[in-house]
Amino acid sequence: MNSMLKNTQRAAIVDGVDEAFDQQIAFTQELIRHPSVRTREASAQDVMERALKERGFTIDRWQLDPAELSEHVGHGRINVSYEGMTNVVGTFQPAQHTGRSLILNGHIDVVPVGPREQWSRSPWDPHVEDGWLYGRGCGDMKAGLAGGLFAIDAIRAAGLEITAPLHFQSVVEEESTGNGTLAAIQRGYTAEAVLIPEPEENMLVRANVGVIWAKIRVGGKPTHPREMTSGFNAIDAAVAVVNQLRLLEAEWNAERGRHRHFEDLDHPINFNIGQIRGGDWPSSVPAWCEFDLRAALYPGTTADEAWEQIMRHLKIAEAALPVGDARVTAEKTGFYAEGYVLEEGSDAEHTLGEQHEKVFGSPLDSFTTPGYIDSRLFVLYSGLPTLVYGPRTEEIHGYDERTHLESLRKVTKTMALFIAEWCGVTQTS
Amino acid sequence: MNSMLKNTQRAAIVDGVDEAFDQQIAFTQELIRHPSVRTREASAQDVMERALKERGFTIDRWQLDPAELSEHVGHGRINVSYEGMTNVVGTFQPAQHTGRSLILNGHIDVVPVGPREQWSRSPWDPHVEDGWLYGRGCGDMKAGLAGGLFAIDAIRAAGLEITAPLHFQSVVEEESTGNGTLAAIQRGYTAEAVLIPEPEENMLVRANVGVIWAKIRVGGKPTHPREMTSGFNAIDAAVAVVNQLRLLEAEWNAERGRHRHFEDLDHPINFNIGQIRGGDWPSSVPAWCEFDLRAALYPGTTADEAWEQIMRHLKIAEAALPVGDARVTAEKTGFYAEGYVLEEGSDAEHTLGEQHEKVFGSPLDSFTTPGYIDSRLFVLYSGLPTLVYGPRTEEIHGYDERTHLESLRKVTKTMALFIAEWCGVTQTS
Repeated sequence: MNSMLKNTQRAAIVDGVDEAFDQQIAFTQELIRHPSVRTREASAQDVMERALKERGFTIDRWQLDPAELSEHVGHGRINVSYEGMTNVVGTFQPAQHTGRSLILNGHIDVVPVGPREQWSRSPWDPHVEDGWLYGRGCGDMKAGLAGGLFAIDAIRAAGLEITAPLHFQSVVEEESTGNGTLAAIQRGYTAEAVLIPEPEENMLVRANVGVIWAKIRVGGKPTHPREMTSGFNAIDAAVAVVNQLRLLEAEWNAERGRHRHFEDLDHPINFNIGQIRGGDWPSSVPAWCEFDLRAALYPGTTADEAWEQIMRHLKIAEAALPVGDARVTAEKTGFYAEGYVLEEGSDAEHTLGEQHEKVFGSPLDSFTTPGYIDSRLFVLYSGLPTLVYGPRTEEIHGYDERTHLESLRKVTKTMALFIAEWCGVTQTS
Repeated sequence: MNSMLKNTQRAAIVDGVDEAFDQQIAFTQELIRHPSVRTREASAQDVMERALKERGFTIDRWQLDPAELSEHVGHGRINVSYEGMTNVVGTFQPAQHTGRSLILNGHIDVVPVGPREQWSRSPWDPHVEDGWLYGRGCGDMKAGLAGGLFAIDAIRAAGLEITAPLHFQSVVEEESTGNGTLAAIQRGYTAEAVLIPEPEENMLVRANVGVIWAKIRVGGKPTHPREMTSGFNAIDAAVAVVNQLRLLEAEWNAERGRHRHFEDLDHPINFNIGQIRGGDWPSSVPAWCEFDLRAALYPGTTADEAWEQIMRHLKIAEAALPVGDARVTAEKTGFYAEGYVLEEGSDAEHTLGEQHEKVFGSPLDSFTTPGYIDSRLFVLYSGLPTLVYGPRTEEIHGYDERTHLESLRKVTKTMALFIAEWCGVTQTS
């Protein structure tokens, strides 16, 4: 498909991004000031709802329904109340529908900040320094969400309006289950392509691991330390269980040559022990220990298949524990997700690549990312070409998370041009 | 010294224990019903105060003073408020002081129960089954505390009264710092011998390790698991720190041949990791992890000397961590205690041995125990012969803690005879 935008239109759109870029940063900062960690996304969603309303989008805001979600094979296991946890979707319906419809999807939830004193400044008080915007969730992914809004603004500032339906989805639960995006799919939203502006280093995601979350519990018989050699130390046992899981991780990494797009990665499969808790008293041999496992799996492996292998290794670890009555159990606590591959050659990818090259002056690279993204839901369950593409960001999930502003500016330009090309435009002024 | 008790007096005292033994069990159960875990000892101390008052003891009850305690070299580090945390000492002053004075010391505090579902019945609802009394703190050490009271009752039931001052100390903080007994020493209490009826399998403690508590913190730089190989995993790092500490533990155990009374123990030095906490989110590489270390040390090693070696090993572990900005720090959180040896040949030990042999029909054995006891304070800082001796108990600090009732009956008889012999008696009826 050839470009439909005129050069003057293209230039006007790009100028529109530049002209509003300070406002765009300010709006991103406003979003970051809302600490939208899991279950506390409402006030940030209020901001998104208002922003979409102001742009003339029709608002659909609803609370996630655990019962409905649980019927879907791709749902993440729910261990919080969804009371008050809402998705916001703004829909633009063109007067004339001549272009191709689009879902612009991003998540509003962010991960916890960790020990506050490790941040140079407050994670909830975003600031700009040396060309970087700092704050929790700046890149993952409030800059992308805000960028989508300002991309649309730039099209309109150029005197244009898009000519296809656009669903702007601000979802919850991307950092824990994927159930926000899944709820939007279950609600019936679909389109001819999806764009998710996650922080991807100005690149396109070609393939992506699946992720499983589990809480592993080790329990046994406590004693006084004076009899420690006869007692069962659940913390020592948990370490042994982790070591057994590391063997499975190594086995899966060794198989990377058999998985398309993962052959060249050093260590595509990461098992992260993200939290650990155990014991009640320094001078009691600990009776229990539990830890949170985040395991990655290759596309083509179902969550059930991966789970079965993890269970097998937990059984091996349990059998090797020195005390007979020790038990190792596992509970699904969130992500239970397959990975996916974005097949090459789609019109959507081609269109994005063209716009990227015009903005950046270099071809759009794609890469394989070993972290969870909601795109798997659109690819696996809606069969949609789903473009995950976004700005350069450092310290995602870390301290002093920061997004590179010049990268964000260019990505916003690419997004604006992509939306205009994909959806088509008509001159309004 | 020859026995001063007549055979008829001895027989009457022993009968007195038997006759009141059901009441003794009932009173021990009452004590167990008060869940006197750290900072919540007050209601159990009320029971002890009332019991001592009823027996005509003069009551001294006072709140522990952190400032005064902290001036003593043997104090444990305080990380709770001592508001409302009291010692109870009942003092008996004889009309005629002709015998030898005695401190009868026991602790009212108990350790937490751990996961409740692991107990066959409630740890706070003591019951008797197959000759055992079950409940948290039954052996450690409410059976001993109650036994002291009923030993005195048995002497009086025999128509006798003791002829030397007796200080009956019900103290707090034995499970965390030793500051309860230390406060009693600082308050000026002393005597010619000390008896502590801890659960010691009908034996006398000959030697005892010191104990140090520390909280070890590991902190570093978190990242998203997709970049895990560049991030610092504080939980993995904590495991490496524990492994380094295990080297020190092994080194100290290998030296046991150089420590009198420890030569024949398999593993006298236990390092217990009693609690662990780390991380904030399953899909963030954990930025922090902290764990509680309980380390044992030989008598003759000061807490400062042991601490210095622990710090040296933490430095080694820190230097070996893969990320330059990782930090390993340690804080003293409780016990900071030397061990001790009870030198053989004291009159007190001889007297106890004679009574034990009369009751049990076999000589009093002594042994070395690798767990903390408050006796170290009397031995090291008051220079008193201190007899730690008490009933058979299983699952100390574990689930279904239980004390053997026939052992308790005999130990109570031994205690009653010991008190009568040591303090002397006069016929009152």
